[in-house]
Amino acid sequence: MGRVNARLEDLPLRADLRGQQPYGAPQAPLPVALNVNENTHPVPQEVADDILDSIALALRDVNRYPDREFTALREGFASYLGHGLTREQLWAANGSNEVLQHILQAFAGPGRTALGFGPTYSMYPLLTRGTGAEWVAGSRAADYSIDAQDAASQIADAAPDVVFLCSPNNPTGTPLGLDVVEAAYEATDGIVIVDEAYFEFAPHDERSALTLLPGRERLVVSRTMSKAFAFAGARVGYLAADPVLIDALRLVRLPYHLSALTQAAASAALRHAPTMLGMVDEIVAQRDRISATVEALGYTPHASWTNFVLFGGVDDPAAIWQGLYDQGVLIRDVGIPHHLRVTAGTADETTAFLDALASVGSAA
Amino acid sequence: MGRVNARLEDLPLRADLRGQQPYGAPQAPLPVALNVNENTHPVPQEVADDILDSIALALRDVNRYPDREFTALREGFASYLGHGLTREQLWAANGSNEVLQHILQAFAGPGRTALGFGPTYSMYPLLTRGTGAEWVAGSRAADYSIDAQDAASQIADAAPDVVFLCSPNNPTGTPLGLDVVEAAYEATDGIVIVDEAYFEFAPHDERSALTLLPGRERLVVSRTMSKAFAFAGARVGYLAADPVLIDALRLVRLPYHLSALTQAAASAALRHAPTMLGMVDEIVAQRDRISATVEALGYTPHASWTNFVLFGGVDDPAAIWQGLYDQGVLIRDVGIPHHLRVTAGTADETTAFLDALASVGSAA
Repeated sequence: MGRVNARLEDLPLRADLRGQQPYGAPQAPLPVALNVNENTHPVPQEVADDILDSIALALRDVNRYPDREFTALREGFASYLGHGLTREQLWAANGSNEVLQHILQAFAGPGRTALGFGPTYSMYPLLTRGTGAEWVAGSRAADYSIDAQDAASQIADAAPDVVFLCSPNNPTGTPLGLDVVEAAYEATDGIVIVDEAYFEFAPHDERSALTLLPGRERLVVSRTMSKAFAFAGARVGYLAADPVLIDALRLVRLPYHLSALTQAAASAALRHAPTMLGMVDEIVAQRDRISATVEALGYTPHASWTNFVLFGGVDDPAAIWQGLYDQGVLIRDVGIPHHLRVTAGTADETTAFLDALASVGSAA
Repeated sequence: MGRVNARLEDLPLRADLRGQQPYGAPQAPLPVALNVNENTHPVPQEVADDILDSIALALRDVNRYPDREFTALREGFASYLGHGLTREQLWAANGSNEVLQHILQAFAGPGRTALGFGPTYSMYPLLTRGTGAEWVAGSRAADYSIDAQDAASQIADAAPDVVFLCSPNNPTGTPLGLDVVEAAYEATDGIVIVDEAYFEFAPHDERSALTLLPGRERLVVSRTMSKAFAFAGARVGYLAADPVLIDALRLVRLPYHLSALTQAAASAALRHAPTMLGMVDEIVAQRDRISATVEALGYTPHASWTNFVLFGGVDDPAAIWQGLYDQGVLIRDVGIPHHLRVTAGTADETTAFLDALASVGSAA
């Protein structure tokens, strides 16, 4: 059709969006993709078969709107998480980004602020500004840790409406103590989100912030099926909180936001949680292998409780990134000077990365 | 777990959300559900089988993030819509509500306004306010039609940033002339959205607003797979516009907002468009049967180019609604005094509705 060659400047775009670039890691079809912290192990066939059976059932009614309350799925999450949680305390959306957006729409938005401790998940400020709220950048110690007193002090100073605590932290991998969560909660009258997207990769005896929910109606613990659960393509994030906070999210979610296919697929995957999570120990072993090997190569890996390793001591991150890319290995430059981040993949993928890194040279 | 009995008032909810109720038609498990304008015909088995095969393929990579650009799906929509459209002019999201939300996030939001001509789709003001923008309620003639001059005049007076034109209009069924679209576009420097959610139910020789896209970079035509396509449960809305407007939406969408399963299911359904749309003529026949019969019962049906009929002359809508409900037939009180709205279902469902309506009494 005869198209006008319009430019973005010709459209009445909001002023705060002008000049921005869309978010997004490069999606390059390389043989070894270790750039976005996916679980690189496919879903086991027996689980995929059961998921498909559940979707086949859902397709029989797909002409009808889905269960707006996604009741069965919330029960599945409550059962998976344990800690005596019930479905009234669960919420879900299309990826944890949408879960976090719902919280920000209800409790942040225009005239309000949200705070996180950088470097942290790069979507927090984007989601915050996307709802019209202002982002307040808190800071961490040199090793990217944060202690309770410092967190409480920064929160008290900034008085934000929403606080993000990424536990363990992306993109650094850093653990976060529950004492920090308790102190952050005491330091604010706002909402405190503990983002446990990578929690399944933490040591098995570690306590989740879920244990802190009783008596804390402003506390939210968010999770995702994109990482340990190997379900990034299905886009399912979720959270646990007081039932009254869940009620608040009902005011801002789009009606029928979770499709019948998503509900069926996620419920089926949850029924196979032990199988789905069977790769976690193997991934953790590869993560620790990465840390040991990059250290032997002269780099400085940061402590990680996640499925990835951030390592410093990289003189020229762009050159190393390109050197790996040229060998078919995709990792991530997360914008921290002299650092790169790599996802722990399968044993073979990890070997491919480590061999390629060794071949492009040790740290200076 | 030991829960605090917190109340919503105890949480730091945004002031503009206090006292609000969540959107939502009642989801009651009645035998004849004609309340939310679904296509009540299930997806044909041959199509469901192909959709399932496509989802099975997608599940093989579901541990990876989906194609953020949903390229194949956009190509599918371009091919379905015709008019020489290409994938660069297409966008999609989880239901047309999310599609509309993306437009509002890019072009409305805090300090801006959106206008629609009421009574119209009740989500427009909710979506508008949800992005922090102000809703401006335009008006229609007594028969719910709107002419070009009146539309242009109201738009010029209000100078909104976004204009909604629902064509044909929900909840009234009213057709909208393309001359209204042209006049509305000329009357504003803002974005003009023509919501063609029900367009497939219009007379086959009617021209879509898609024909007006060339040379109008501020015009958006939105559609959905929830109605004619019998795909409400899959949550797929889409739109066509100038490629530069699509670029603007990339700034506000959440990354990976469309799951791999949604992309696979919708692409497969589009390959079977003629079959999926095979029920449309049958539904239109039932719609016209409803109009004729409720008129014979003394009610006043409004002209409809959709899959539903709004009828007036109802002395006591709540009583009629309840009388139908008690007979297992669920229809919708959309809040227009002395009116009710019913979806055209299968022949049997339509008969059940008409019989039940006759049994609860003719119009006064």
